[in-house]
Amino acid sequence: MVDGDIQFAPDGRLRHCLTTEGMGGERITEILDLAESFAGVNDKTIKKVPLLRGHTVVNLFFESSTRTRSTFELAAKRLSADVLNIDVQRSATSKGESLLDTIANLQAMQCDLFVMRHPESGAANLVARHVDDDVHVINAGDGLHAHPTQALLDVFTMRRHKPDLSERSVAIVGDLRHSRVARSEIHALRALGVGEIRAIAPRTLLPVDLEGLGVRVYEDIDAGLADVDIVVMLRLQRERMEHALLPSSSEYFAGWGLTPERLARARPDAIVMHPGPTNRGVEIDSRVADGPQSVILEQVTNGIAIRMAVMALVAGTAPQREGR
Amino acid sequence: MVDGDIQFAPDGRLRHCLTTEGMGGERITEILDLAESFAGVNDKTIKKVPLLRGHTVVNLFFESSTRTRSTFELAAKRLSADVLNIDVQRSATSKGESLLDTIANLQAMQCDLFVMRHPESGAANLVARHVDDDVHVINAGDGLHAHPTQALLDVFTMRRHKPDLSERSVAIVGDLRHSRVARSEIHALRALGVGEIRAIAPRTLLPVDLEGLGVRVYEDIDAGLADVDIVVMLRLQRERMEHALLPSSSEYFAGWGLTPERLARARPDAIVMHPGPTNRGVEIDSRVADGPQSVILEQVTNGIAIRMAVMALVAGTAPQREGR
Amino acid sequence: MVDGDIQFAPDGRLRHCLTTEGMGGERITEILDLAESFAGVNDKTIKKVPLLRGHTVVNLFFESSTRTRSTFELAAKRLSADVLNIDVQRSATSKGESLLDTIANLQAMQCDLFVMRHPESGAANLVARHVDDDVHVINAGDGLHAHPTQALLDVFTMRRHKPDLSERSVAIVGDLRHSRVARSEIHALRALGVGEIRAIAPRTLLPVDLEGLGVRVYEDIDAGLADVDIVVMLRLQRERMEHALLPSSSEYFAGWGLTPERLARARPDAIVMHPGPTNRGVEIDSRVADGPQSVILEQVTNGIAIRMAVMALVAGTAPQREGR
Repeated sequence: MVDGDIQFAPDGRLRHCLTTEGMGGERITEILDLAESFAGVNDKTIKKVPLLRGHTVVNLFFESSTRTRSTFELAAKRLSADVLNIDVQRSATSKGESLLDTIANLQAMQCDLFVMRHPESGAANLVARHVDDDVHVINAGDGLHAHPTQALLDVFTMRRHKPDLSERSVAIVGDLRHSRVARSEIHALRALGVGEIRAIAPRTLLPVDLEGLGVRVYEDIDAGLADVDIVVMLRLQRERMEHALLPSSSEYFAGWGLTPERLARARPDAIVMHPGPTNRGVEIDSRVADGPQSVILEQVTNGIAIRMAVMALVAGTAPQREGR
Repeated sequence: MVDGDIQFAPDGRLRHCLTTEGMGGERITEILDLAESFAGVNDKTIKKVPLLRGHTVVNLFFESSTRTRSTFELAAKRLSADVLNIDVQRSATSKGESLLDTIANLQAMQCDLFVMRHPESGAANLVARHVDDDVHVINAGDGLHAHPTQALLDVFTMRRHKPDLSERSVAIVGDLRHSRVARSEIHALRALGVGEIRAIAPRTLLPVDLEGLGVRVYEDIDAGLADVDIVVMLRLQRERMEHALLPSSSEYFAGWGLTPERLARARPDAIVMHPGPTNRGVEIDSRVADGPQSVILEQVTNGIAIRMAVMALVAGTAPQREGR
Repeated sequence: MVDGDIQFAPDGRLRHCLTTEGMGGERITEILDLAESFAGVNDKTIKKVPLLRGHTVVNLFFESSTRTRSTFELAAKRLSADVLNIDVQRSATSKGESLLDTIANLQAMQCDLFVMRHPESGAANLVARHVDDDVHVINAGDGLHAHPTQALLDVFTMRRHKPDLSERSVAIVGDLRHSRVARSEIHALRALGVGEIRAIAPRTLLPVDLEGLGVRVYEDIDAGLADVDIVVMLRLQRERMEHALLPSSSEYFAGWGLTPERLARARPDAIVMHPGPTNRGVEIDSRVADGPQSVILEQVTNGIAIRMAVMALVAGTAPQREGR
């Protein structure tokens, strides 16, 4: 809720993109609609619009992620922005500079938009509370807290396949406890009024507060997948688990891996999603990841359009919608 | 031959640039002619043409090479492309993603052209066989197999100095066994109908199949250099040699290093080439590398024009030649 | 003096920017005036002018510095240049290539402007003596020798706050012995005819030749700060000190750290500067660094304008001043 307040300007405009919690269904729909217009740009040979020409976008990654950084870099360049990539493991913080000092310096260089990934929950919020009014922050993942653009591209992908989301059932499978993607996705799905959200995971990988969010919890994957329309697989974040929460990856696959047989329990036209990169043979069978129901690569494509939309919206350069 | 097939589209257009083997003399001449027009662009103060505006070029380097990556990056930027540099040692593959998964994801981000260097022979071919029809692959070196743009810039440089290549004699000196440059160059020279190709190397650094390619083999450098028009020195790839094929670099220099005295055995107007970076005092004497017959830095300059030509050709945005 | 000669073309134009020594007050004033015009560009939403369109700027950093590299990268991009970042720790020199070979190759790629940081004093001069007439070198810090753009942005910042520099007193505090910033700043201040320059430092951190440069030396910070108009704090370069020149950073702070109490000895409207990144609690108290007299972040902002001005001037694309 506090998050939700910070990301809006006093006039109600989206100023930062920090979390889908408290973003509201109307705002999310606005982002998805704008992303639809950018999806067209990316299909063309000349994938370039001038909405951020002369603006400077900084990719400030305190955790390395070539894939996510690349999608933001491409989104910014296709909006004609100048892009500065800063990999902070190799940077000034090794000289003892604090996060807020780094930001203050980049802001003094008239950088306009920070895309930030950080291992600590709340880092993007902290920065958003300190930047000038004309500077914008997009959270590209903060600790175990949120990853709003991933959630937005996921619901964008769902809406393209199942426009009647309010009548659909979504199952999220895997390590929900350590997943900022799952957390952001549940908030976005609830805001859009999705029919049903299920969580499927071993007890040790479940967060404590799911039922309060209206999520039905299943430990048994066969029961949980029955008749769902959308299956969202999560990456098994082995590096995140501090304790031995799981016996082994092969036992995990035996219990919760998505095989063709298990997928057959969902509706025949169910789609399968994954934020990538996939651990084939750990949380998902290659026959499913590469199968006809998989929309995993569509998610990647949609991620560019969503990130273009979010950047243009927070920067205030998005075309106005008719009738506003 | 299989290589040659993959790099052409069904309509005969050059779709990828994977190898000079099977490329054909007419096609190579087309590339060299187009590169001549870009050489003019690079001489101007404003070195920019809009042929790849809105296109996305990915430099995907699984082996680090700042120099080669820089020439491709500059070539792409001078064609007005957006460029994404991915150094794969530090990237998603550390999360266990396969080469084809990496490519599938970048393709889903609507990247148009992959410039790829990989330590395994055949890697660029593998990728070319899996990308969509409107996506293009340029091999920037794959294992011991091929390095076609280096070979093309070399024959471009030769043609500028010795337009009558069919009457000229070329000597390639050094570690031919581990050289993808030599392999690609021999194919290009044969396609252009060069007068004579000689290979000069110690027996342990010679590949087995040279005579089948019409190459005359010399172990003695003085005999091999006699009356040649063009001397191509190869870098001694010490890191490539798995076994003790050579006694020491000073003994190598004593036997096969290019000194002014040895160069005097070639024709007086012979040119000296080297793909760089040179090992001064190992395969080449500084007096030769920096001397009046050296065209080593011209090769670097020509490399930009050749890479611009290859990129524009495979992307289908090169200006049409008159009379086609 | 020799430095001063190299950086000018025979017609008196600034061809390289290597040092403020011998640059002359008129030339420095020309740079500051031009930077004023670029400061306006950076305040706009579209921070872009086409002065270096089609030019290639190489950031060649032999010492890593994300902050300085970022300011040059942004300055070049806002002038519409193509930018190539080369981090030489991870580059061709590991294959045994010399500095001049690296430069010769990049020059052969038709790169127009080298921004170079190097741990050895004189490295930028060496390069400037070897490049072609239409290639330009900007020294972004060479060993203990010079860092001219930092000095220029500092005097730019001083002039904005204290236009009557000839009546002002400047105190430089800290590790002058290992500071290329201090050295370049003293030359620039003298060229502009500043009223008084003081150096404040423990004896072990003072260079030997200060009095010859017209600088008054103080070991006692309270005496040195009395009635000054401008306080320039230096970063304590712990990594530079080869021997135990200082007891500990807390003792250093006790003796020479800038606290509010000490700053009170300067004139009430004195400004506080620091080249960054600051060591809070070592050479400066956070209450001063973040206080109303600090212009530290203004320096960062001004650094972009100064670097744009220097790049445009050496490249010969700066707008002509009226009346010349």
